[in-house]
Amino acid sequence: MRALATHPAARGLEDDAAVLEVGSETLILTHDAMVEGVHFLAGQDPADVAWKLVATNLSDLAAKGAEPLGVLLGYQLGPGDTRFASGLAEVLGHYNVPLLGGDTVGGNGPQVLGLTALGRATHRPVPSRSGARVGDGLWLTGPLGGAMAGLEALRSGIGDTLAYRRPAALLREGRALAPQVTAMMDVSDGLLLDAARMARASGVSFAIDSAVVPIAVPEARRAPALRWGDDYQLLFTLPAAAAPAVSAFRIGEAIALGPSPLVLDGRALDEASGLGFEHG
Amino acid sequence: MRALATHPAARGLEDDAAVLEVGSETLILTHDAMVEGVHFLAGQDPADVAWKLVATNLSDLAAKGAEPLGVLLGYQLGPGDTRFASGLAEVLGHYNVPLLGGDTVGGNGPQVLGLTALGRATHRPVPSRSGARVGDGLWLTGPLGGAMAGLEALRSGIGDTLAYRRPAALLREGRALAPQVTAMMDVSDGLLLDAARMARASGVSFAIDSAVVPIAVPEARRAPALRWGDDYQLLFTLPAAAAPAVSAFRIGEAIALGPSPLVLDGRALDEASGLGFEHG
Repeated sequence: MRALATHPAARGLEDDAAVLEVGSETLILTHDAMVEGVHFLAGQDPADVAWKLVATNLSDLAAKGAEPLGVLLGYQLGPGDTRFASGLAEVLGHYNVPLLGGDTVGGNGPQVLGLTALGRATHRPVPSRSGARVGDGLWLTGPLGGAMAGLEALRSGIGDTLAYRRPAALLREGRALAPQVTAMMDVSDGLLLDAARMARASGVSFAIDSAVVPIAVPEARRAPALRWGDDYQLLFTLPAAAAPAVSAFRIGEAIALGPSPLVLDGRALDEASGLGFEHG
Repeated sequence: MRALATHPAARGLEDDAAVLEVGSETLILTHDAMVEGVHFLAGQDPADVAWKLVATNLSDLAAKGAEPLGVLLGYQLGPGDTRFASGLAEVLGHYNVPLLGGDTVGGNGPQVLGLTALGRATHRPVPSRSGARVGDGLWLTGPLGGAMAGLEALRSGIGDTLAYRRPAALLREGRALAPQVTAMMDVSDGLLLDAARMARASGVSFAIDSAVVPIAVPEARRAPALRWGDDYQLLFTLPAAAAPAVSAFRIGEAIALGPSPLVLDGRALDEASGLGFEHG
């Protein structure tokens, strides 16, 4: 992607979800792809794959405070089509989102799936990752590490796998927070990496107190939980005196831009420190 | 696709481009995927693949008389990323359409690419494939078979390949025709197959005079030219007395629904006769 994303034609590909003014509406658009063997296990239940494909895209809308209008699916045929369709029905029903259209294709390689989600903004300006200001509190909606533990459980056959298989898109929370936040994004690639991205986009650094970050795993696994992705909690900043409209945890604050985007427990961290997972 | 499309959750996948009312706007959305070795040759210039991916989606917007607002790309990394980005810049510049966003993924199988195109209707009601009425003339914007000849030239190394590599999206024509037509679609899978689909959707049959269908290949190849896809001409119906706003060819008319959707030179044809190319 580097070669593509550095090309002027592809500049939009690494941004947040797209925000587009059309007439009196503000549309939010996002597209995520998933590859068998990269983003999901080859033997995984296709119903769970469908759930995750939809939920992760809706999570991008949640981070914009958007109301979903529908999705378009790019589906590569595979042996589990019926299970996929069943999971698709389940997740679209759960979030009450229509399938607007899409395409299905053949092919013999690892299955590649794409989903486009369209939403409308419920609050303007639309939250972005670039609005954090020095002094703002840094907040997180819920615990991290659940997806990590879920993937381990799926691989070992022992333990609860739900958080990995069926992440939640925090649409209600995103809409409630949108009028309050100075910046917001969903944590898809790990807290530290995504917080560093928000810091870079906002021109601040974040001081994070790792001990107060909520985790869904034993204390001994706190460090990996802060770096693992796939939990889809919302990360946001609020003016220092504000309290969030939904249940959330204050994990740090925005400080003046320093040499590193993150200061974790007093120690400067940058991307070279291995903050999380970067997809290819 | 069959297993998926028969599921209630996936009903939209075989329709036209989606039409969505949002506030005072009517949005048109379409998503097409292309697979290496299925929709494009493994050794093809990635710049041409980018062109075709964009142009075929814009052609779906053209058939709705829509003005493009932007595209989202699902891109699987491959060895030709720089060439792809270059072709992407070229086609987006040619049609003056912005890249709004998307996703890039890794993976080692055949390259799978997806594109979502978003447009706004310029005329309401938005043309569909279901509006043809008995007595309407059936029209085509231009010659068929060019893509067939172009693919053969690409494989043999002899002859002009452009029509296969770089199809045109007839956006101007679609907008000019939208206020006039009773039905419209683009011909992506072959004239006969797509005309049969329009007939089925409209509840009529079409009588087509094969001799007056314009072709871009020698007369001896007329029959395959009527069945080959990838030309992206617009197929539309007009009230009997109407003349189209753009250059086009009258190739037949809508007749009362018979046992077959098509009557070609007096002979009834249905899907079992092998009307064209059905993608997997």
